[in-house]
Amino acid sequence: MAAFKSIKSLVPLLDRVLVQRAKAETKTATGIFLPESSVKELNEAKVLAVGPGGLDRDGKRTPMSVQTGDRVLIPQYGGSPIKVGEDEFSLFRDHELLAKIKE
Amino acid sequence: MAAFKSIKSLVPLLDRVLVQRAKAETKTATGIFLPESSVKELNEAKVLAVGPGGLDRDGKRTPMSVQTGDRVLIPQYGGSPIKVGEDEFSLFRDHELLAKIKE
Amino acid sequence: MAAFKSIKSLVPLLDRVLVQRAKAETKTATGIFLPESSVKELNEAKVLAVGPGGLDRDGKRTPMSVQTGDRVLIPQYGGSPIKVGEDEFSLFRDHELLAKIKE
Amino acid sequence: MAAFKSIKSLVPLLDRVLVQRAKAETKTATGIFLPESSVKELNEAKVLAVGPGGLDRDGKRTPMSVQTGDRVLIPQYGGSPIKVGEDEFSLFRDHELLAKIKE
Amino acid sequence: MAAFKSIKSLVPLLDRVLVQRAKAETKTATGIFLPESSVKELNEAKVLAVGPGGLDRDGKRTPMSVQTGDRVLIPQYGGSPIKVGEDEFSLFRDHELLAKIKE
Amino acid sequence: MAAFKSIKSLVPLLDRVLVQRAKAETKTATGIFLPESSVKELNEAKVLAVGPGGLDRDGKRTPMSVQTGDRVLIPQYGGSPIKVGEDEFSLFRDHELLAKIKE
Amino acid sequence: MAAFKSIKSLVPLLDRVLVQRAKAETKTATGIFLPESSVKELNEAKVLAVGPGGLDRDGKRTPMSVQTGDRVLIPQYGGSPIKVGEDEFSLFRDHELLAKIKE
Repeated sequence: MAAFKSIKSLVPLLDRVLVQRAKAETKTATGIFLPESSVKELNEAKVLAVGPGGLDRDGKRTPMSVQTGDRVLIPQYGGSPIKVGEDEFSLFRDHELLAKIKE
Repeated sequence: MAAFKSIKSLVPLLDRVLVQRAKAETKTATGIFLPESSVKELNEAKVLAVGPGGLDRDGKRTPMSVQTGDRVLIPQYGGSPIKVGEDEFSLFRDHELLAKIKE
Repeated sequence: MAAFKSIKSLVPLLDRVLVQRAKAETKTATGIFLPESSVKELNEAKVLAVGPGGLDRDGKRTPMSVQTGDRVLIPQYGGSPIKVGEDEFSLFRDHELLAKIKE
Repeated sequence: MAAFKSIKSLVPLLDRVLVQRAKAETKTATGIFLPESSVKELNEAKVLAVGPGGLDRDGKRTPMSVQTGDRVLIPQYGGSPIKVGEDEFSLFRDHELLAKIKE
Repeated sequence: MAAFKSIKSLVPLLDRVLVQRAKAETKTATGIFLPESSVKELNEAKVLAVGPGGLDRDGKRTPMSVQTGDRVLIPQYGGSPIKVGEDEFSLFRDHELLAKIKE
Repeated sequence: MAAFKSIKSLVPLLDRVLVQRAKAETKTATGIFLPESSVKELNEAKVLAVGPGGLDRDGKRTPMSVQTGDRVLIPQYGGSPIKVGEDEFSLFRDHELLAKIKE
Repeated sequence: MAAFKSIKSLVPLLDRVLVQRAKAETKTATGIFLPESSVKELNEAKVLAVGPGGLDRDGKRTPMSVQTGDRVLIPQYGGSPIKVGEDEFSLFRDHELLAKIKE
C-alpha cells in the first residue's frame, strides 16, 4: 500500500517504466456480460511515466525504448507491483518490455 | 491473451524478434490425413517483425541477424508466447535464434 | 542494535541511501482509529542521507538518483535494516529505489 | 522435427556450428557385426556449416575456429539437436567445440 | 585460531578492512548489570587497518572508503572471522561496509 | 569413445590443453608390487598439445601458460575426458591448470 | 598424491600462490604437551612460491600482492590441496589471501 494520493506523483528512477495493465473486457463484442472466471488477465499495458534512463559505464543515460502514452506488451511475470487505493500499477525495467502496440 | 486485434500491431523492442511457428502437416505427402498424435511440433518459424536491435555499451544498436520474412530454426524451449485470438506467436531475442532456413 | 545515539550520525558509504519508512495511518481520514491488523506496511520512505556514489571502472563517482529529503518508493523486500532505540531505518543501494514521489 | 527437406538449407546464425556426429562402426575391423549394445556413441563430428561469427562489443565479428569439412571433437553433452527425416544433427557454439581432428 | 601474537601484525590485502565489533554494554545507563541474554550483538565496529585498495582493470588501485580509526556500520552477516587469543576480529571488503558513524 | 586412431591427431581449439595424467607407480621404490587399492590417482599430467589461445575482447589471442612437453599439476576435478582405445586423456582450459612441475 | 619429489619443483601458474599452513603448537608455552584434540588448525601460512600474475583484458600481468617468504592469513575454506609425501600444501588465487602477517 502507498500513502501518496495519486499515481501521477510517481517519477520512475533510472530505466524504470510505470505502466497500468489494460483491463479485460467483461462483456463480449455483442454486449453479453462474461462470467468472471472467463475474463483473462491481459499482458497489454499503458505507459504512464518513464524514468530518465539507466547510466552506462561512462555515466551517460541510455535511451528509453518507450514514452508516456505508449501501449506495450509486458511479460507474464515480473515487475514491481504498486497499489494506490483500489488501482494496481507496475514498474518494469525498460529492457523487460516486450513490444510496442501500434493500432 | 492480448486485447489488440492484429499481430501486425506489434513492434518488437530492442533485439526481439516476433515469429510464428510453422504448422506441421496434418496429412502425408500422398494426401492421407494423419491422426493428431503423430503430428509433431515443428521448430521452424517465420519472422513477422524484428526490433531495432539492442544497445551496446556505447549506445549503438547491434545489428539483427534476421529480417521480416526469413524462415528460422527456433530453440525447443524459451521465447515469450503471445496469443491473439486462436493464433499463437512467440518473441525471441535475436541471439536465441539458431539458424536461417534457405530453400 | 546499534550503539550510536542518533541516526544523524550515519554517513552512508558509496551508493547507499539511508531511508525511514513512512508510518501507516492508524486512524481513518475521518478520525476513527484502525485496529492494528488493518494497518498495512507502506513502501514509501523518506531519504535521510545519501552516500557519495559508487565508483565506476575509471574511479569516478556515479551520480546518485535521490537526495536528502526526497520521498521515495522502496522495494517490498531487501535493504539493510538498522535499529536505533525503538526506531527502524533501512539502507538501500541507489539503483534499488523504484521511484521518487512528488506531491 | 523440421519441415525443411535438406540439412543443406540451414545457415547457422552468429557463432553457431552445424555438425553431424560420426557413426560408430557396427562391425569390427575384421568384418564381424557387433551387437547393438556394444556400439558406443562417438564424440567425433563433421562440420557441415558455420555461422558468420558472434559480435564483439564493438560490433565486429569474432573469427570462427573451424570451417566446413573439418572433423571436430564435440563435448559429451550440450548442443541443440536437429532431426531431418531419420538423420540427426547438432548446433554448437564455436567455443564449445573441443578440438579439431587432423589425420 | 591464529599463531601471531598481536592483531597489529595484520596488514589487510587489496580492498580488505580489518575491524573489531563494538562490545555491547553489559549494564544499563544507570549502572544496573544486564543479564547476558538481553545483551545483543552490535553491528558497529572500529576500523583497525585498511588494505591498499583493489586493482581496477587498468591496474590502478581503487580508493578505500574508510580509514584506520573510523567507526563503521557492518552488515549483519559476512566477513572473515579472525580470533587472536580471546579477542575476535573480522575482515570485510571495503564495499561491504554500510556506513561511517560520526558522533 | 573416439573413432580417430591416434591422440596425435587432436589439435585443441582456443585455450584448451590436451594432457595425459601420469601413471601411479604400481610397485614401491624397492620393487615390491602394490595391491591395486593402494595405488592412488595422480594429479600430475604431461602436456601433449596446446591450443592457439583464447580470443580477448579485441580479437587478439591471449598467451598460453604452458607448452607441449610441460609437466603440470591438474585440478582434482574437471576437464573433458577423451578415450582412445585403452588410453585416457583430458582437455583442460589453460587457466584451470594449477602449476608447472620443473625437476 | 603427486609423483614429483620436492614441493620446490612447483611453479604456480597465473595468479596462484603456493603456501604451507603453519603447524599448531602441540605443547604450551611452558612446555606442557597438549592432547591432540585441543590443537586447532591455524589459518596462517607461509608463501613458498608465487605465479607471474593473471592476465588483464589487455594481456598485461596484474601484480601479485605477496611474495615468497611472506606470512599470510588464508581463508578457512578453499584453495587446492597438494600432498607431497606426508606434507600438505595449498594453492590459492592471489585475491583469496586475506592479509599479510608482519611481526
